[in-house]
Amino acid sequence: MKEAIAAHASLGEEIVARINELGAISETSEHLARVFLTPEHRLAADLILGWMRSAGMQADLDAIGNVCGRYEGERPGRPCLMLGSHYDTVRDAGKWDGPLGLITAISCVADLNKRARRLPFAIEVVGFADEEGVRFASTLLGSRAVAGTFVESVLNNKDSAGISMRSALAGFGLDPERVGAAARVRGELLAYVELHIEQGPVLEAQNLAVGVVSAIAGATRLAARLTGMAGHAGTVPMDLRRDALAGAAECITTIEELCRTDERGLVGTVGYIHAMPGSTNVIPGEAHFTIDLRAPTDSHRQRAVADIVRHIEAVARRRKLQLQVDITHENRTVPCAPWLKAQVAAAVASEGFPVFELPSGAGHDGMAMIDIADVGMLFVRCKGGISHHPEEHVELADADAGARVLLRLIEHFHPKPAGR
Amino acid sequence: MKEAIAAHASLGEEIVARINELGAISETSEHLARVFLTPEHRLAADLILGWMRSAGMQADLDAIGNVCGRYEGERPGRPCLMLGSHYDTVRDAGKWDGPLGLITAISCVADLNKRARRLPFAIEVVGFADEEGVRFASTLLGSRAVAGTFVESVLNNKDSAGISMRSALAGFGLDPERVGAAARVRGELLAYVELHIEQGPVLEAQNLAVGVVSAIAGATRLAARLTGMAGHAGTVPMDLRRDALAGAAECITTIEELCRTDERGLVGTVGYIHAMPGSTNVIPGEAHFTIDLRAPTDSHRQRAVADIVRHIEAVARRRKLQLQVDITHENRTVPCAPWLKAQVAAAVASEGFPVFELPSGAGHDGMAMIDIADVGMLFVRCKGGISHHPEEHVELADADAGARVLLRLIEHFHPKPAGR
Repeated sequence: MKEAIAAHASLGEEIVARINELGAISETSEHLARVFLTPEHRLAADLILGWMRSAGMQADLDAIGNVCGRYEGERPGRPCLMLGSHYDTVRDAGKWDGPLGLITAISCVADLNKRARRLPFAIEVVGFADEEGVRFASTLLGSRAVAGTFVESVLNNKDSAGISMRSALAGFGLDPERVGAAARVRGELLAYVELHIEQGPVLEAQNLAVGVVSAIAGATRLAARLTGMAGHAGTVPMDLRRDALAGAAECITTIEELCRTDERGLVGTVGYIHAMPGSTNVIPGEAHFTIDLRAPTDSHRQRAVADIVRHIEAVARRRKLQLQVDITHENRTVPCAPWLKAQVAAAVASEGFPVFELPSGAGHDGMAMIDIADVGMLFVRCKGGISHHPEEHVELADADAGARVLLRLIEHFHPKPAGR
Repeated sequence: MKEAIAAHASLGEEIVARINELGAISETSEHLARVFLTPEHRLAADLILGWMRSAGMQADLDAIGNVCGRYEGERPGRPCLMLGSHYDTVRDAGKWDGPLGLITAISCVADLNKRARRLPFAIEVVGFADEEGVRFASTLLGSRAVAGTFVESVLNNKDSAGISMRSALAGFGLDPERVGAAARVRGELLAYVELHIEQGPVLEAQNLAVGVVSAIAGATRLAARLTGMAGHAGTVPMDLRRDALAGAAECITTIEELCRTDERGLVGTVGYIHAMPGSTNVIPGEAHFTIDLRAPTDSHRQRAVADIVRHIEAVARRRKLQLQVDITHENRTVPCAPWLKAQVAAAVASEGFPVFELPSGAGHDGMAMIDIADVGMLFVRCKGGISHHPEEHVELADADAGARVLLRLIEHFHPKPAGR
């Protein structure tokens, strides 16, 4: 094992250097922000295209602004193993979320190219132009275009300055009428595999550099409204109150307890709360809060939603509060394909790491790519589980570990056996 | 008893008619608002002065704008039994909070005057100019001036239009340098007695028209801040979270439970909460909330404050949250004098009502008057416990009941026995 580590140590170093180079391309100097179709987004695309070409790939922008590189196999024109991640960021972002997977894939191809190694299949690397959805309030625009599920009406979405996506595409040098040309079809892809930072603290807590992703957890978001009776904080005895905020507080602790005692990865979050009228000396007559629920399977999440609604209905009934709950958002779970998971796990083990499976609680481009390909994911440990924040960080050794596992996966990749 | 009811039935009718007449004097026609030193406040003062004079009182404004009427006793110049309440309102107010006590006192004096009944002591009726403190963000301005505890620096307070209290007093025809002249001294008063709507639902729940107030409950207000760790709602497992809002929710249910199981009138309210960053899909890293605690005695309230702080400290410790708690406001409890409570209770019983004692959770002018006189209070039932709202309502029969009890109290009033 020691020799293998020494042989590839340069991969991690190259990756970290490129992460820093790309991370310096930002709309503002105070913090990192690189959103869809801005001049900095274009500068980043050009930098990535250059890396792809020097790795021996044919590379160009596609019709939505994705950077696409292709490294032919032993024979040209074969279906590809597609690797990728996104190169847009949130505002006040870290450097690693997205770019790590993209840059690692390019470095892996560069390593193959340096060794003149060709495989029985092509490799394509895609840097998706928009995953975060910061500018036009719609996520996964790049991967949806590739998967052929881009919704044309989104072209009319406007950013906060009133610029439509349609005119932003034209300004970027793309034809908004031709976004459909970015679409690929199922037969062209053998699989879609993404390396990404975990964005959570599990690998760190497990003392592991990498982890095999079991699924991209689906999410249900709910909005709850409790209505009781406002009243004077001094004059209404406790047993005559219908305090909407006290009811909401009981709902929050109940939701937390239901998730905490679930042993199969259910997580639930109340991130927003508002009590009205909101005065120190007035009993709240109304309280609004949101619930975000995620689980590794759709059936598990749907049972949890029903369970939580039943529990908060009981809280409301006992407290004589009116309750309204609405589902405001729902994403299906995207399971990673078992045959791909097995190959990712084999690569992890071959590089000398314990195999550890975990679900992804965050969304990824695989959520769109599942429509045209089986999806696999490899997580790399990030410091403190922090992401979408300037303190987002990956250790050099972990970036290197991720690259070695991805390279081994590529070199040992076998397409899905027929009939399985 | 039936004869007694019939004899005084006109008191209630007069009172309700005057409540409506005074309630029509408002800064806006859409809702009732009559705040300190406005032209409408002045119109109201003139109306009340007229009622006082026709009730046989010498009446005038004092140096802060209180309307003061005096009905001499059997011999002129004797110490007085002072009756009163306030004639300012909150914005979007009801007609009864304040005016009921003032108008009832005037009607009682009018009744005595009609019968040429003089008592061994004088009666003074005060309509305090400012109790609510809406305009200059300082409460009890009228009664503090009478009690000699008016703080001169408040003259520099400005209203939302930038007008100082000093110039508003001048505009009202009063000399801001002479506010001190409103002060009375202990020997001039035998007692201060106030009739007021309950502003809570207890008498209604007890099916009682009137109640004897045991004390004006003191209040402590606290501001709490919990700091945990913000994180992605999907990627941080439940057991690795430090969710500030979940911690706040547990604090809220704990505070509610501590108050609910207290059997001596403790009430606690969390009226305001704010979770940050406040996004559906982010675990809150910080939560702020307020606590309002009231109890019939200071020692009870202070023990409850310590108890609650100890409990929420334990919640924070267990959840690895940082906690900061500050006391932002504190009002002492004003107990009603036992000798006065006994006379109020005797008047209630003599009018044929069950004697029921309850604390006042809301603040009243007695909180200032306690500095120069023993304080007694009589509560009148209000509909649904609603106050500071256009739906604030008192039934005619209850207004009449309050007036009969107050009249009986006046006619049978004995100053505090020496040495007790």
